Formats: sequence, C-alpha cells, structure tokens
Amino acid sequence: MRIGYGFDSHAFKPGVPLILGGLPVPHTEGLAGHSDGDVLLHAITDALLGAVSAGDIGTFFPPTDDRWKGADSALFVRTALEEIATAGYRIVNLDSVLILHRPKIVPIAGEIRASVADILGIPSRNVGIKAKTPEGLNQDGVAVAHVTVLLEE
Amino acid sequence: MRIGYGFDSHAFKPGVPLILGGLPVPHTEGLAGHSDGDVLLHAITDALLGAVSAGDIGTFFPPTDDRWKGADSALFVRTALEEIATAGYRIVNLDSVLILHRPKIVPIAGEIRASVADILGIPSRNVGIKAKTPEGLNQDGVAVAHVTVLLEE
Amino acid sequence: MRIGYGFDSHAFKPGVPLILGGLPVPHTEGLAGHSDGDVLLHAITDALLGAVSAGDIGTFFPPTDDRWKGADSALFVRTALEEIATAGYRIVNLDSVLILHRPKIVPIAGEIRASVADILGIPSRNVGIKAKTPEGLNQDGVAVAHVTVLLEE
Ligand SMILES: [Mg+2]
Ligand SMILES: [Mg+2]
Ligand SMILES: [Mg+2]
Repeated sequence: MRIGYGFDSHAFKPGVPLILGGLPVPHTEGLAGHSDGDVLLHAITDALLGAVSAGDIGTFFPPTDDRWKGADSALFVRTALEEIATAGYRIVNLDSVLILHRPKIVPIAGEIRASVADILGIPSRNVGIKAKTPEGLNQDGVAVAHVTVLLEE
Repeated sequence: MRIGYGFDSHAFKPGVPLILGGLPVPHTEGLAGHSDGDVLLHAITDALLGAVSAGDIGTFFPPTDDRWKGADSALFVRTALEEIATAGYRIVNLDSVLILHRPKIVPIAGEIRASVADILGIPSRNVGIKAKTPEGLNQDGVAVAHVTVLLEE
Repeated sequence: MRIGYGFDSHAFKPGVPLILGGLPVPHTEGLAGHSDGDVLLHAITDALLGAVSAGDIGTFFPPTDDRWKGADSALFVRTALEEIATAGYRIVNLDSVLILHRPKIVPIAGEIRASVADILGIPSRNVGIKAKTPEGLNQDGVAVAHVTVLLEE
C-alpha cells in the first residue's frame, strides 16, 4: 500500500465559472488559475502523483505552458491515474476537505462526489468529500483543498 | 484499509472555556463555535466520516440546528464511530496536529491524548497528539487542527 | 500499518541559508527558526513521531534548549527514526507538499527527494516531494510543509 497527500489553493475571482471536482457549480465567482481553477481536482492529482513519487502537477503541466490555459482539470487527474497504474497501484479510497467561505457545499457534496468518482473511475463509496468554512483564518477570498489517498497493489 | 483526513479551525474568543480533545484546558480564552468549539474533536469526527465516505460534521450536525448549541463535541465523535462501525471498519491509529499560538500543548499533550483515546475507545498508543505554533502565518487568534486516520476491516 | 501526519511553518528571513529537506538551496533568504529552519524535515520528524504516538518535535527538542540552536534538522529525523524502529515499524512511503512563493521547487525537487531519502535511509521511489505557491493565501513570506507517512511492521 502507499499513501499520498495533495494541497491546492486558488483565489476567487468574478467572471469565471466555478468548477469543483469537475462539477460546474452555480456561484457569483469562480477560481482564478491558468487551467479551469478546479482546486479539488488539482489536489487529487497531486495526492495521486505523490503517492507514487511521480512529481507533481507543476512537473507535468507547467503553468507557463499555453496548452493548459483554461484546461479541463480532469485531464490532469487522468495523467495521474496513468502514473499510478504504470507504477502498479490502484486507489483504495480518497478523502478530501474543501475550505471555503461560499458556496455551501453540503447541498452539492453528493454531486461533487459522483463527479470525482466518475473521473477517477472508482465507486462513490470510496470518495470522501467534506467542507469547512475558514473560521478565524481571514481567507474568505480563497478556496483550499486537502486530499489524502490510499493505494494498493 | 481506508484513510481519512479532517480539518477544522475556530477563532479564539474571551469568556468561553477552552476544550481540546474533550479536555477542559485552563486558559484566558476559549474557541468560538456553535458547539463547545472543540477544534480537535471536530477534525477527528470529519476524518472518521471521510474515511468511510459518510459525509461530514456539517451533514450530521448543521450549525443552524439549535440542538448542537454548546454541545459536547464527543457526541459528534460517537456518531462518526457508529458510522465507521456500520461500514465494518475500526480505527488502526489516528494522528493529529494542533496549530495554535497558545496555550502550550507539550505539558498537556498526554492528558489530551488520554481524553481522545477514551472518547474513541482505543488505546492511547494509537492516538498521536502534536502541536505547532503558527510561525509566520499571522493566525495567532485561531486554533487549527489537522487529523489523519487509518481504518481496517 | 500506521499513519502519520506532520505540519510545519517558518517565516522567511534575510541573512540565513535556506535548507529544504537537508539540501542547501541557493536563495535570497532562508527560514527563521531556532534550528536550521528546515520546515520539511521538521514536518517529516513530526509525521514519524505521530505515526507511533511518540510525542512531537517540541517534546524531544524544546526550542528553549540552546543545544538545538542552529542544529542540523537531520538530527531530529534520526531521533524519530529511532522511535519508529523501537516501536517495531518501518517506512512504507512518505509524501509531502511544500507551500512557498519562492524559490521554484520543480527544478530542485529531485535533489530534495534524494536528500530526504538519504536521511531517511529509504529508496527515493518511496519519497514524494511536491510544491505549491500559496495562491490567494497572503502568506508569501512563509514556507509551509505538510507530510504524510505510512508505516508497516
Ligand atoms: Mg491549482
Ligand atoms: Mg468546528
Ligand atoms: Mg519547525
């Protein structure tokens, strides 16, 4: 078995769509970023790559490369899945926390979970989606994701 | 086996008791929050729920529900323990980090550990309690908890 | 098996060398701290100690103790390795994320990985080194490390 951990953060900005775990989420703002700003899929990508010591999202998809401008972040996840498959591993389960002031995640957590499970090609029961508001942290303008993953041979 | 990760943060505020891992801690301030503000037990609850993909503390105990006003957070942990038992799992070990400016945790880490182990119903040797001050992070007014947990069938 | 998690943060400051994972990194600033400020090795030390519930870096190496002033943080890691060996465990794999504005980590991630693997006495393929810039978090003056570790008997 192997363990992986991923972190990501993106600032909210007006005028772009909000995408979380591959799911378009109706909201007044989206997340800034070279790609589609999907903070959760980026942290998942990094957790998977890290679990097999295969570098990180920046190694594979440098933000300086115009190819990834506005990219669908599911593409990054698929590359990470290829890396873990090549290394001979598959996902046991994945857990995550989104830290953001708005929107409320509880009503859409099931949909985000289904979207993430679909992108990962695993059952929903092996994907945890949780959320917190950033109490006391003065970071209401940013979305943060922490992801942990367990792999088996 | 399954892995879970939980995060929580609460701002310090005067005039309320400080409770960490179920242990009342003598201090000039406590933690704001709808319940007793026990940032460590909240992160533990979320790590357990996330490990079995059972939602999060906000799903089970919405802050809008008056029943949980001032609640003993051990109640939240017990609900999470029921969820992992129902899913057919038990705790192998749990590790945690508290990030807070004060009070000093080293002198009371053993007591917090015993309290957490007691609430979880597992031996102290399977509970890790660690602490850091938030060096460079400008968050002296808040307590943060990160928790990771490993489950087995 | 057992799981561990470690966190650390240190503010950047001019006039001191930057050391990351035991590797001296050419940069305009280093990290403040009682020891050599190696935020990554400190988080690794804590992840290892936490995985076997053996306290934390502050328990073993109090910052009030002059012996650890400017200390090589590899010393802290070695103590944690002794603790996990005494408890009857060894490292399966370790994953990490550094969150810092500068310097760029991608070009030196391989060297940091080799240095960490060497200090831990494990193959590089079992060490994950990743990095993020702190997008939206207003913490450009600080380096943060998150580390997760999986142990087996
Ligand atoms: Mg990103
Ligand atoms: Mg809470
Ligand atoms: Mg440190």
